[in-house]
Amino acid sequence: MIIIPGSNSQDLAFRVAKLTNSKLARVESKRFPDGEIYVRVHDDVKDEDVVIIQTQNRQNDGIIETILLCDALRDEGANSITVVAPYLAYARQDKKFNPGEPISIRALAKIYSDICDKLITINPHETHIERFFEIPFIYGDAVPKLAEYVKDKLNNPIALAPDKGAIEFAKTAAEILNCEYDYLEKTRISPTEIQIAPKNLDAEGRDVLIVDDIISTGGTMATAIKLLKEQGAKKIIAACVHPVLIGDALNKLYAGGADEVVGTDTFLSEVSKVSVDDVIAKLLR
Amino acid sequence: MIIIPGSNSQDLAFRVAKLTNSKLARVESKRFPDGEIYVRVHDDVKDEDVVIIQTQNRQNDGIIETILLCDALRDEGANSITVVAPYLAYARQDKKFNPGEPISIRALAKIYSDICDKLITINPHETHIERFFEIPFIYGDAVPKLAEYVKDKLNNPIALAPDKGAIEFAKTAAEILNCEYDYLEKTRISPTEIQIAPKNLDAEGRDVLIVDDIISTGGTMATAIKLLKEQGAKKIIAACVHPVLIGDALNKLYAGGADEVVGTDTFLSEVSKVSVDDVIAKLLR
Repeated sequence: MIIIPGSNSQDLAFRVAKLTNSKLARVESKRFPDGEIYVRVHDDVKDEDVVIIQTQNRQNDGIIETILLCDALRDEGANSITVVAPYLAYARQDKKFNPGEPISIRALAKIYSDICDKLITINPHETHIERFFEIPFIYGDAVPKLAEYVKDKLNNPIALAPDKGAIEFAKTAAEILNCEYDYLEKTRISPTEIQIAPKNLDAEGRDVLIVDDIISTGGTMATAIKLLKEQGAKKIIAACVHPVLIGDALNKLYAGGADEVVGTDTFLSEVSKVSVDDVIAKLLR
Repeated sequence: MIIIPGSNSQDLAFRVAKLTNSKLARVESKRFPDGEIYVRVHDDVKDEDVVIIQTQNRQNDGIIETILLCDALRDEGANSITVVAPYLAYARQDKKFNPGEPISIRALAKIYSDICDKLITINPHETHIERFFEIPFIYGDAVPKLAEYVKDKLNNPIALAPDKGAIEFAKTAAEILNCEYDYLEKTRISPTEIQIAPKNLDAEGRDVLIVDDIISTGGTMATAIKLLKEQGAKKIIAACVHPVLIGDALNKLYAGGADEVVGTDTFLSEVSKVSVDDVIAKLLR
């Protein structure tokens, strides 16, 4: 197996190569002055099983680079091509919300199905997107790694999901933290006021882990943190797999009262402190 | 026929729609805060022949938007999808210059062949790329439009190609200008000095049109302009179909002595003064 680093995941690729005792390829990647991407794989990949590791936080550029890498690898006679996209761009455009819209992840899944033999990602927002792929679509769960990371930082904690749909993340984390879990319920108490509180538990006097797959704008989570503090919560850590953290999201969370925000290296951010290296390595074995 | 404007070619699409008496669709296009592209076609395209007009000067974004538009149009039941990419990104990565490189235009041609029924472009740098397409690949020539544009600006002109390979452009322009044509020959006269002059003609006392398909860095053309002026050329106009004009290229050309630089609207630039609207309209009829 040869690990092919995309330009977005050079460090992650290095670590996955070590964990899997694989060769790390030398991939030259640059921009032509007009903005087009140039890539070149400097290693012989003939008859090899190759694994491209390329997260898609620079979405369109990451996708095009992956397409070009697959072309080169196929042409050089690779035996199989696996694309690892820890953060899979456009995965949230997974249905037609209005007429005339694309199902963006379907369009891209069709392309991946043509250019590679297997796609691996981490915590896709909706797992039903698997049906758009004509190749094996495999995903890992990085929530246990987040739970391990916060384990020694929290006393007598509860694990909370930001909504009912995310309850599995809280459950997974709670198993590792050996604690109770719940989800946050939002109640409108007046036209201008909402209450957010754990559905069944009480946050008073407890450390809290709020865990989700992705934090984008961070708006609702910041409000939840503020209200949990008012309810007497002590330390609050907000954890997510994909720290997309658009614009001022991180500041919102800290201003809301978060004691720490943590994410993984599926998406480049200031808080990408936990690596999914071993989650990927396990899926490659 | 319904014209679908890509976000890079909203004006061009409007004009092509007028020239072909076609309906111009309303296409909503924006960015999600995380950088992903959102598009929505607001018109009913069921059973219609649709034509996406999207030049690819913002290369990767233009390609991804086109992929998403094709997905939406196919899903809404369009009868046929034609993609017009006046400037076709990655067309110059048309062969493997070194092992381990992709043939980028081949990778993209494969995608276009899957998502649409016909591809139209203007003056592709190499026409042999047609073989990578499994759909009709049709191209127009915008050099006559450049020649028409400069016709009344030049007296007793000669039309020059910047090199032997581009001689057809000079020939095409010369037919419209009703003048002689030639190509520029580069001779090394010392380790540090080169001479560039028309192979057979004399520029002295003549107005000059230099015409090429694309100007990228403009380096050689700027040198040629400087040397032609030294040879006694009067007015010099540098014309190209695709004014890619990387970085300070335009300044180089004017500093070299060009009296005007002109290109078409296949690529957004300060000198995109000539429209390929009717060249495209003709190919659509």
